[in-house]
Amino acid sequence: MRPNNRANDEIRPVKITRHYTKHAEGSVLIEFGETKVLCTATIEEGVPRFLKGQGKGWITAEYGMLPRSTHTRNQREAAKGKQSGRTLEIQRLIARSLRAMVNLEALGENTITVDCDVLQADGGTRTASITGAAVALTDALSKLVEKKKLKSLPIKSRVAAISVGILNGTAICDLEYTEDSNADTDMNIVMTQEGHLIEIQGTAEGTPFTFEELNTLLALGKIGLDALFKAQDSALSQ
Amino acid sequence: MRPNNRANDEIRPVKITRHYTKHAEGSVLIEFGETKVLCTATIEEGVPRFLKGQGKGWITAEYGMLPRSTHTRNQREAAKGKQSGRTLEIQRLIARSLRAMVNLEALGENTITVDCDVLQADGGTRTASITGAAVALTDALSKLVEKKKLKSLPIKSRVAAISVGILNGTAICDLEYTEDSNADTDMNIVMTQEGHLIEIQGTAEGTPFTFEELNTLLALGKIGLDALFKAQDSALSQ
Amino acid sequence: MRPNNRANDEIRPVKITRHYTKHAEGSVLIEFGETKVLCTATIEEGVPRFLKGQGKGWITAEYGMLPRSTHTRNQREAAKGKQSGRTLEIQRLIARSLRAMVNLEALGENTITVDCDVLQADGGTRTASITGAAVALTDALSKLVEKKKLKSLPIKSRVAAISVGILNGTAICDLEYTEDSNADTDMNIVMTQEGHLIEIQGTAEGTPFTFEELNTLLALGKIGLDALFKAQDSALSQ
Amino acid sequence: MRPNNRANDEIRPVKITRHYTKHAEGSVLIEFGETKVLCTATIEEGVPRFLKGQGKGWITAEYGMLPRSTHTRNQREAAKGKQSGRTLEIQRLIARSLRAMVNLEALGENTITVDCDVLQADGGTRTASITGAAVALTDALSKLVEKKKLKSLPIKSRVAAISVGILNGTAICDLEYTEDSNADTDMNIVMTQEGHLIEIQGTAEGTPFTFEELNTLLALGKIGLDALFKAQDSALSQ
Amino acid sequence: MRPNNRANDEIRPVKITRHYTKHAEGSVLIEFGETKVLCTATIEEGVPRFLKGQGKGWITAEYGMLPRSTHTRNQREAAKGKQSGRTLEIQRLIARSLRAMVNLEALGENTITVDCDVLQADGGTRTASITGAAVALTDALSKLVEKKKLKSLPIKSRVAAISVGILNGTAICDLEYTEDSNADTDMNIVMTQEGHLIEIQGTAEGTPFTFEELNTLLALGKIGLDALFKAQDSALSQ
Amino acid sequence: MRPNNRANDEIRPVKITRHYTKHAEGSVLIEFGETKVLCTATIEEGVPRFLKGQGKGWITAEYGMLPRSTHTRNQREAAKGKQSGRTLEIQRLIARSLRAMVNLEALGENTITVDCDVLQADGGTRTASITGAAVALTDALSKLVEKKKLKSLPIKSRVAAISVGILNGTAICDLEYTEDSNADTDMNIVMTQEGHLIEIQGTAEGTPFTFEELNTLLALGKIGLDALFKAQDSALSQ
Repeated sequence: MRPNNRANDEIRPVKITRHYTKHAEGSVLIEFGETKVLCTATIEEGVPRFLKGQGKGWITAEYGMLPRSTHTRNQREAAKGKQSGRTLEIQRLIARSLRAMVNLEALGENTITVDCDVLQADGGTRTASITGAAVALTDALSKLVEKKKLKSLPIKSRVAAISVGILNGTAICDLEYTEDSNADTDMNIVMTQEGHLIEIQGTAEGTPFTFEELNTLLALGKIGLDALFKAQDSALSQ
Repeated sequence: MRPNNRANDEIRPVKITRHYTKHAEGSVLIEFGETKVLCTATIEEGVPRFLKGQGKGWITAEYGMLPRSTHTRNQREAAKGKQSGRTLEIQRLIARSLRAMVNLEALGENTITVDCDVLQADGGTRTASITGAAVALTDALSKLVEKKKLKSLPIKSRVAAISVGILNGTAICDLEYTEDSNADTDMNIVMTQEGHLIEIQGTAEGTPFTFEELNTLLALGKIGLDALFKAQDSALSQ
Repeated sequence: MRPNNRANDEIRPVKITRHYTKHAEGSVLIEFGETKVLCTATIEEGVPRFLKGQGKGWITAEYGMLPRSTHTRNQREAAKGKQSGRTLEIQRLIARSLRAMVNLEALGENTITVDCDVLQADGGTRTASITGAAVALTDALSKLVEKKKLKSLPIKSRVAAISVGILNGTAICDLEYTEDSNADTDMNIVMTQEGHLIEIQGTAEGTPFTFEELNTLLALGKIGLDALFKAQDSALSQ
Repeated sequence: MRPNNRANDEIRPVKITRHYTKHAEGSVLIEFGETKVLCTATIEEGVPRFLKGQGKGWITAEYGMLPRSTHTRNQREAAKGKQSGRTLEIQRLIARSLRAMVNLEALGENTITVDCDVLQADGGTRTASITGAAVALTDALSKLVEKKKLKSLPIKSRVAAISVGILNGTAICDLEYTEDSNADTDMNIVMTQEGHLIEIQGTAEGTPFTFEELNTLLALGKIGLDALFKAQDSALSQ
Repeated sequence: MRPNNRANDEIRPVKITRHYTKHAEGSVLIEFGETKVLCTATIEEGVPRFLKGQGKGWITAEYGMLPRSTHTRNQREAAKGKQSGRTLEIQRLIARSLRAMVNLEALGENTITVDCDVLQADGGTRTASITGAAVALTDALSKLVEKKKLKSLPIKSRVAAISVGILNGTAICDLEYTEDSNADTDMNIVMTQEGHLIEIQGTAEGTPFTFEELNTLLALGKIGLDALFKAQDSALSQ
Repeated sequence: MRPNNRANDEIRPVKITRHYTKHAEGSVLIEFGETKVLCTATIEEGVPRFLKGQGKGWITAEYGMLPRSTHTRNQREAAKGKQSGRTLEIQRLIARSLRAMVNLEALGENTITVDCDVLQADGGTRTASITGAAVALTDALSKLVEKKKLKSLPIKSRVAAISVGILNGTAICDLEYTEDSNADTDMNIVMTQEGHLIEIQGTAEGTPFTFEELNTLLALGKIGLDALFKAQDSALSQ
């Protein structure tokens, strides 16, 4: 039995709080059960040098965990003087996912930086980050429309992300920490609202997985993602 | 007139939420008006090398601001690869203040690390950090007593901190951002519950200040600190 | 038509030269067409601190590109003072893949470090690295058997890796640089000799991809991987 | 009894040698007893980016200790690759103090960098640095007047700095190392020649201090500062 | 007897392979016996800031060793986050030597960066680097002539480099690793094709050397250098 | 004519002040004309890891320039976060030279660190550093004898260093800055008191030099070095 009697295709309770902090153009606290991530989106005029003069915008992301967001304290990356490979890998994933949801030409020469900071970790921080960041990004883009900087929202199709995995031979959706740390296979899926894939990253931590298991996991992920899109819709409609 | 019609010796509404996150031995969200800081206290066995074998404990602190806790986004220190002088200065101040409230011999060879992370900044982040950290530290020390690791709370006298300053020739207490950024003199006072001074740091940003003004500021600070100690008492009694 | 008239499911000519340099316990130059990577495996006694005393071994990997392995010169990471996110991401992928092919308990408290250094890049450097590293690792493990440090080769199932992608709507296998830089979807697949999946990473650089396209890509990857396993077999049998 | 039979309000012999090295626009060796600091002031045209186009000047400072200026050797910060929190804190204090003594509008778009390098440390290196730097800065500003770059000295009021503290219950002025390392309270005061306060930083290293003790320390500091201003006057009149 | 029965004034077999990799404007694999270094030369328009507007070109160099080019694995400098003193010293030597062979005025505002990466080390990596880099640089300069960017080759006189040393009281030329690691004196000589000295660096690792021994070493070096110039001539004439 | 009418083989006035600062076991201010370097020698028990248990001592060196020791200000290396290649090269040279003068077996498992900090630069800072450091090292070793830690001075033969060069076709000795910055060839020679060579480093900055010129330079260097040894003798006999 899963913790809290969850069904294998059931995600944890999702809570999306918009306008969580006041300075950022988009600010969302997203909770996947006990995992809590603060996602803020900042609009700045101009683009990085490699894009200058092309009339296109840019979206980038940074990710961090507060030192005691985890069971035992992790050393602060600012104090260590460098970000870990895991951090860099996650923030590259978040940024790619968000860029895929936006029409960068329509954004014009603006840069949006999304910061995902984990206040409390209980598995799935990268999927919560992407799902919450998509809402914060939507809010920031709406600000540009309100201020008449853009005519319409330059969103192609909103994204969300879910983790799926195989634990003791069973495929399950939205793993929490106790599940994640024992799973044989761990996969993250980023999908658009229209059901197309943006990113898929699956890793066999223990036993390798078969092509059949991959398809089972994908189907399970689709169910979780549909639930997440509903949670995003509901938050954005308030 | 001050924002929100505050009197010159009046502090902002203070809100102290204990057990804000679940992993840390002490976890406090402190709010000084719109300034919000998450303070967590982590207990680890052992002490840094320079203290080994002396039977004494150690308390250290780290401070950080989320990139968009401020009006415009600050570059993430983990990405820059180093902490600014301001950050180092603040975390040294927090750590000295907390060490002054604890009997380190009675703590035994344990280290407590307090992390103060600013979720939203509106002036006074360092004084909110110290005031909230004192509560988180108290909670963490209580855990050591509960677990029979210590016989009694090794606290000499709890601390709190307040800022005072001179704005347009008037001495005021607990400056918020719009006040702080225009003040001529800015002073931080750390005091014990018994009314003794732990730390005093005053800086003339513009016009120098006189010895008389210094005494006015100290008196104003004492009023604010008494209000903060009440807020701490109230939070800890729940 | 693909460059060199390759069929969509056809990999580039693969050349695996063992014992390419003389100091390393395993040293392989692998060529995927014009992509050339030198993979060396180094055996050292002992394991990292987090594994001490568990009787298990460890495998780690590092990846680098010579500054002018590419069309235009990249700044040397040693001179910049840090490895890029891309580099860290690739070397974490290589290491995970190699660890999946070895029985770490049977390896005993030894660490094997695999260095993959790209001498010339033309697309697919990470898949060439994994495929060549698997051979270098096999050679290094064989040395431990020869020297009677191990009774038998602690290999569960050798691994290889291939890239697949969608270019102008067509799924193709083993993309070279001119294809890779224009592809809409780019996917890397790491598989065991027995046909089980170790890692799958797919990214929509442009248009998102469908679940059907994903399955087409996986099938294409399997064909390429079978060819790579033959090339490894052939090299190891000499 | 204090070392060398000093009275509690008596500073150590002060020696200020101008033109100590030949390249800098201002170069002063200041000695507070056995503490020796070389202070050089460098004029450069232009200002940091955040000040460009405002017609104002800037003053900044850096501080360092030679590795064996102290009883035991400290690791060289250039070799460690970063400056300590203490170093950053001190150089920020020096810079703020010096900026307070200059009319930055009158300075025009020039930057003056003051380097304070401790050749020999025996307590009070930061107060000696500020007191010597004020003279070096004055010499550098005089050069700008001599060269007709400025019409008159843009000095509002020269600054000096002194340490005071409580040792074994007694308030004393200008602590040397053996006193400083045992003091309960340590305070640094930066004052203008006109007797106004620029900066005050007091820390209870052991027992907290009372508001009365604070006033005693301030009075003692004033006596020491008056002696320092005389020493500066005398040096500048030669 | 020397390894492989070499005479004291005899260099190891030299092999120079031009066009070793395809992207660089000059790409040479040079082998001094078992020492193998890949030297690539990259042309970029423009010059460093300190040379702008002077109509002169610039030549710079970087040096690296692959982690397992040596008997035991060296930590990767990119992973350590800094280049060692030895690396910096060698790349400064290579760059100075190459600049001496080129008429920088005739080169115009172009920068050529030469990368020397050691694939396998067996003594003499810096002399092999200089000797191979001189050929790669020649090829790159020829490209500029071919493309009509320059009218003629801006080469004053090609350079080469050799090591000489005293081992067990005997002066020998072109030391390989087993000799080098036991030599009392180790000297590197960089000379032009016309027999003039560019650089000489001699170090007594054990017993100091006399002025007479110095002259013996120089004579020996000249013999080795003549052989190297022939090898360069031969490679360049193909 | 040379500045100050110096003859071509004449060194600048040398001044060696022992016991310049009070904490270090050896502390020497050496002046070569206007070049002033503070050399301190620190004794610490124990040796670096690679020497442990061999009963031998170690000597190491660090070099730095105060930011405004030069005509224009150089950025502080501690602030930049790394030492330049030039700095690392010089401190490696100083350390090798000093190790050559000491019998490391007789020193026992002690480490001596010599810091050479340039207070004012006017050419020849590395040769002044070595010459002054040899005296500071002698003083530190004498302390070990005084304290009965060693039976006798473990010095094989004291060292000194001089620069020689070719300026406008003329060979000259001990170049000052205006000469050094225009010289075609610049050479540094480190020699023992007995006239044997420890290190020789010659560089053609402009025109290459001949073997004959090299011998002229060496002869000139010997004259300068004899004068330096007399200055060392004189200082040590006081």
